[in-house]
Amino acid sequence: MKKVVIFGGGTGTFVVLSGLKKYRLDISVIVSMMDSGGSTGRLRDQLGVLPPGDFRQCLVALSEASELWRTLFLYRFETGDLKGHNFGNIFITALEKITKNYQEVVSTASFILKTKGKVIPVTFDKVHLCVQYDDGGVIETEDRIEHEARAGKIKKAYLVPQARANEKAVKAISDADYLIFGPGDLYTSLIPNLLVGGISEAITRSHAKIIMIANLMTKKGQTTHYTMSEHVRDLEKYLGKKIDIIVANSKKIEQAHLDYYAKFGEAEVVDDLHTAQKKYVIIKRELLSEVVHKKSSVDTAVRSLLRHDSEKVGTVLFEVVQ
Amino acid sequence: MKKVVIFGGGTGTFVVLSGLKKYRLDISVIVSMMDSGGSTGRLRDQLGVLPPGDFRQCLVALSEASELWRTLFLYRFETGDLKGHNFGNIFITALEKITKNYQEVVSTASFILKTKGKVIPVTFDKVHLCVQYDDGGVIETEDRIEHEARAGKIKKAYLVPQARANEKAVKAISDADYLIFGPGDLYTSLIPNLLVGGISEAITRSHAKIIMIANLMTKKGQTTHYTMSEHVRDLEKYLGKKIDIIVANSKKIEQAHLDYYAKFGEAEVVDDLHTAQKKYVIIKRELLSEVVHKKSSVDTAVRSLLRHDSEKVGTVLFEVVQ
Repeated sequence: MKKVVIFGGGTGTFVVLSGLKKYRLDISVIVSMMDSGGSTGRLRDQLGVLPPGDFRQCLVALSEASELWRTLFLYRFETGDLKGHNFGNIFITALEKITKNYQEVVSTASFILKTKGKVIPVTFDKVHLCVQYDDGGVIETEDRIEHEARAGKIKKAYLVPQARANEKAVKAISDADYLIFGPGDLYTSLIPNLLVGGISEAITRSHAKIIMIANLMTKKGQTTHYTMSEHVRDLEKYLGKKIDIIVANSKKIEQAHLDYYAKFGEAEVVDDLHTAQKKYVIIKRELLSEVVHKKSSVDTAVRSLLRHDSEKVGTVLFEVVQ
Repeated sequence: MKKVVIFGGGTGTFVVLSGLKKYRLDISVIVSMMDSGGSTGRLRDQLGVLPPGDFRQCLVALSEASELWRTLFLYRFETGDLKGHNFGNIFITALEKITKNYQEVVSTASFILKTKGKVIPVTFDKVHLCVQYDDGGVIETEDRIEHEARAGKIKKAYLVPQARANEKAVKAISDADYLIFGPGDLYTSLIPNLLVGGISEAITRSHAKIIMIANLMTKKGQTTHYTMSEHVRDLEKYLGKKIDIIVANSKKIEQAHLDYYAKFGEAEVVDDLHTAQKKYVIIKRELLSEVVHKKSSVDTAVRSLLRHDSEKVGTVLFEVVQ
């Protein structure tokens, strides 16, 4: 059974995991633990816990428990003291408060949700993501990078304080046949994992092939005007290694949706991979979801309207890795 | 196997259930659903749910799940948005929000906590407890009765609006060999159950023997200056039936503790049962817990310092009912 490791934590990771779950694969997901916005951010700030949000999303994506448990873990309170808090986040927070170490949180939550495969927090250290822009300006914490969405190019990303890798993440990378990145926000979902001490070293040592699933749209404040090869370049910089395979959408995006994104300074990621110096295996498929997602009325984070179709992503990935 | 039904919901019920759990008995607990204070009250008001607090306490008391689950369900958040909220209450609230009917909440929560026996909400109607005093004054809602703790004698208790009994509660009463009341606040924990349409009627029809475990201390605003026979009289008024057996503590309460209660206008319940017209089986035992409980720093409700010892209560009850 092939061993695949998915890196991420956000909505894109949820899509990939949901798509891969039904296949006979040994799945591990390494979750970025640098979220600081919304319900997760408030729980971090107010209760001093590790960010539960991305971890919870990955657990649910891989869950084979009854519908009730998955619904419960995704349920968000809409009024009162609990407004905007996600039940799964509260559950994980309470578990962290009553257990001795986070590994116990991971194993208990995984057991309850009957996750297929392993959900592995990249680190158990409490750290924040920071980025420095070309003009020297710095933004600290993931939610500010997201919300300020400032102009300019990100020069470097780093963690404060430094973080050490969860040894189970290192082990998963060492054992992997494939390492899968994306789709997801380049600087707030994918790269944070690579900033944790020991992760890029493990990737360098690994013999696994590296797959990137290209984003559909640019992200303001992170990848404004970025082409596909610029995404690849930045990810490779933090990987310390060349990507092998790039999976990208070929289905045309409707003009109305492009217009909507344009209002937020975001555009379709242009495929310029034919101009790249390095050689990649490039797989283009219709991967766009037919469902157009709406922004959440409760969650403050802006969610993407357009998404990859989890079934189509699962199909193409399984073809590649099997 | 003898069938016992315990009525209540508060701390006293937790003690009785914990004490009875280890015995070979068919246990049901009928839970008052009129709580409106603290975390429970805020969840009721803000999210429109049934009060989760007493229900959760009974589930935990009868739980045979791992220590972790029981600890989780009793965990109370101490800071931030969730301050003062109990995790178990949040869990039950979220379950109510995602399920179609409360019976599903009951069965799911009972399954998760592996409860020995049945925890039965007395009603699924959303109602409030009200009391009228001798001077005509009325207080509405359970938490105000508790907190205002006003002087005067309660003339009558009633629910607004009227409530219909959960049919499982009626069935448990019909099938019971013993019905057990107390210890607990007479007007805010025990009598509310009897105000629900169909409950006292079921008790009247039942052939079960009725046991009352006498309270240790009076409760300001409810049973100020009440002797034991006055407790019995008021309970019998709402039962519509005579109590058969009265279990009371014989162990002397320390003067320092009596002095502490006196500051709140509360005193030891004087046993004057020898003066009663009716004949009761009276069982006196040392039932006082050696542990003196402290008030919770987070919960706003005043908790009793002195409690019954659950093991001793369990022992004497099992002797009576076996």
